[in-house]
Amino acid sequence: MELNEILKGIRPVDPRWIEKARERTARLVMPPRALGRLHEISERLCGIRSTLEPSMGRKAFLVMAGDHGVVEEGVSAYPQQVTGEMVRTFLREGAGINVLARHVGAEVWVVDMGIIPELDPSTLPGGDRLLIHKVAPGTGNMARGPAMHRDQALKSVLTGFHLGSKLMEEGVEVLGTGDMGIGNTTPSTAIASVLTGRDPKEVVGRGTGVDDEGLKRKIRAIERAIEVNRPDPTDGLDVLAKVGGFEIGGIAGCILAGAYHRRPVVIDGLISTAGALIAQSLCPSVTDYLFAGHRSQEPGHQAMLEHLGLEPILDLGMRLGEGTGAALAMGIMEGAVKVFREMLTFDEAGVSDKAP
Amino acid sequence: MELNEILKGIRPVDPRWIEKARERTARLVMPPRALGRLHEISERLCGIRSTLEPSMGRKAFLVMAGDHGVVEEGVSAYPQQVTGEMVRTFLREGAGINVLARHVGAEVWVVDMGIIPELDPSTLPGGDRLLIHKVAPGTGNMARGPAMHRDQALKSVLTGFHLGSKLMEEGVEVLGTGDMGIGNTTPSTAIASVLTGRDPKEVVGRGTGVDDEGLKRKIRAIERAIEVNRPDPTDGLDVLAKVGGFEIGGIAGCILAGAYHRRPVVIDGLISTAGALIAQSLCPSVTDYLFAGHRSQEPGHQAMLEHLGLEPILDLGMRLGEGTGAALAMGIMEGAVKVFREMLTFDEAGVSDKAP
Repeated sequence: MELNEILKGIRPVDPRWIEKARERTARLVMPPRALGRLHEISERLCGIRSTLEPSMGRKAFLVMAGDHGVVEEGVSAYPQQVTGEMVRTFLREGAGINVLARHVGAEVWVVDMGIIPELDPSTLPGGDRLLIHKVAPGTGNMARGPAMHRDQALKSVLTGFHLGSKLMEEGVEVLGTGDMGIGNTTPSTAIASVLTGRDPKEVVGRGTGVDDEGLKRKIRAIERAIEVNRPDPTDGLDVLAKVGGFEIGGIAGCILAGAYHRRPVVIDGLISTAGALIAQSLCPSVTDYLFAGHRSQEPGHQAMLEHLGLEPILDLGMRLGEGTGAALAMGIMEGAVKVFREMLTFDEAGVSDKAP
Repeated sequence: MELNEILKGIRPVDPRWIEKARERTARLVMPPRALGRLHEISERLCGIRSTLEPSMGRKAFLVMAGDHGVVEEGVSAYPQQVTGEMVRTFLREGAGINVLARHVGAEVWVVDMGIIPELDPSTLPGGDRLLIHKVAPGTGNMARGPAMHRDQALKSVLTGFHLGSKLMEEGVEVLGTGDMGIGNTTPSTAIASVLTGRDPKEVVGRGTGVDDEGLKRKIRAIERAIEVNRPDPTDGLDVLAKVGGFEIGGIAGCILAGAYHRRPVVIDGLISTAGALIAQSLCPSVTDYLFAGHRSQEPGHQAMLEHLGLEPILDLGMRLGEGTGAALAMGIMEGAVKVFREMLTFDEAGVSDKAP
């Protein structure tokens, strides 16, 4: 499917279903809206699916992996080979996202969107969970030129869209986005700066834990990337191509898939939210379908969430990525759905309501 | 067991196990402490149980119910009969706590600590989950005299202790506290005021949703209760007797049971935290064993949590009580435990650690 066709197929959520859902919430046996944000979550899920019987059903994560040329600027605390090593760890089900996705009953699919190593799914333990859709073996160094060509940016978004769509066509009801890519807080922060209009210094953070010198190099790399490439803030594909990453484009595509198929997408932290900013700039209505799993400890994340108009579900000082915050949040969302469906109403329970 | 004997049996958590747990966390395959508060949770559970193999195992809620004489001052938005009606709803498994406890795999036990109606467990649907330990059919009106006698306060605490202890002796590893009692945000706020030293006006809230006139009556009732009874802030039993409630005493007893048996107790919102303030004033070390499930929307709750030195796990604008916030938080705690136990280490995963 072409991008234009996808974007044309996305509609805002119908507020009438949210209104109907609010009416049911008002009858549940508790003071008005006493479970706070749980009600917003369940009602928005009703709106997204046009139903009063929301369901979290089959849940899956697409963990998008890519490498980044900008690491040669010394912006990360870890060596680049860790990207591929962590992909293997995901397949062995030994990483944070594996543990937390299992905890909430979600599947984990790992996508090579553009890592440097060539992994062979047929010989790797757990390789049946690895999907190879390598756009290229790592992006270019955005501090010296564009991270990728515009057609590669388009390809990464369409790949994410098709993978997300395929899972949804197979019955996945809730999609979570995750990421792996040494150096990827640097392009994500560049995207945040361009699309929220904030200075890189305001939104930059230490990522996996870079020291003071590394932080300075990271700021300089982001500033230079924006200066050299002049990304157009009104054109999400241009921003993705010039200062993005393959996994970030893949995440943007997943988000378009959710909105297109009218299914909720739960985003994770900084990198997923950078993907959401790209998706939103392509199609503002996507935010109707998004849930922000958590507030990352990365300083720029809050500004990005505000730009999207999303309030995170959790705030636990997490900054791992991989989808971990989104996974934990799915457990809360599932609780919200159960409250909506399983609590008795005042009538059913025979409990006296407020005096009028 | 006598109260003195209980208090003498409570020891602070041994920090050495927390230190050992931190060493394991440092080896897990992620940047240092990248899952933020999940690590604090799992490490504190290691400390509480003196183990590096923490477990959430069998989880149970004691939902303590009591009625309150102070409702005759017009402090609640709901009629008093709702206390008993909600107890029946708990037994039918149709209330918020039932849904959310089921969601996280926790049992729900309901305790008549002192409600007005006489319920017969042998004839009620779900009556096998109702434990009758009625101290009295409702407290006295604290705005005109003590809520209860000192020996009733003691009895309510000892009842909570024995019920919590029994569950733990039967294998419950994590205890959650819940409450039901129309009017009970009024004594809880009075306790908050006395034990944190804040003015009632600073800590009062709308409870189940009282209107402006009701809020004024509530403030006056609390002020009068403190003026008439002069509770001694250095004597938790005196505070409980003069401005407390039977379910609040029961919750304080549950917390003592957790600390005595070295098991974690997850407290819920305003009422559970009032119970925690009473327990802490009897024995400051109890806070080592406490987890604050969530931050209630009630304005006084944050001050109470600060007084206890606890940071809540969730902040979702909830204000239902019953144990609902504690239940949702147990799901997060269980995720934290799984991260600690199931994530691979850098060595196991063969992933390169940071350059030194």
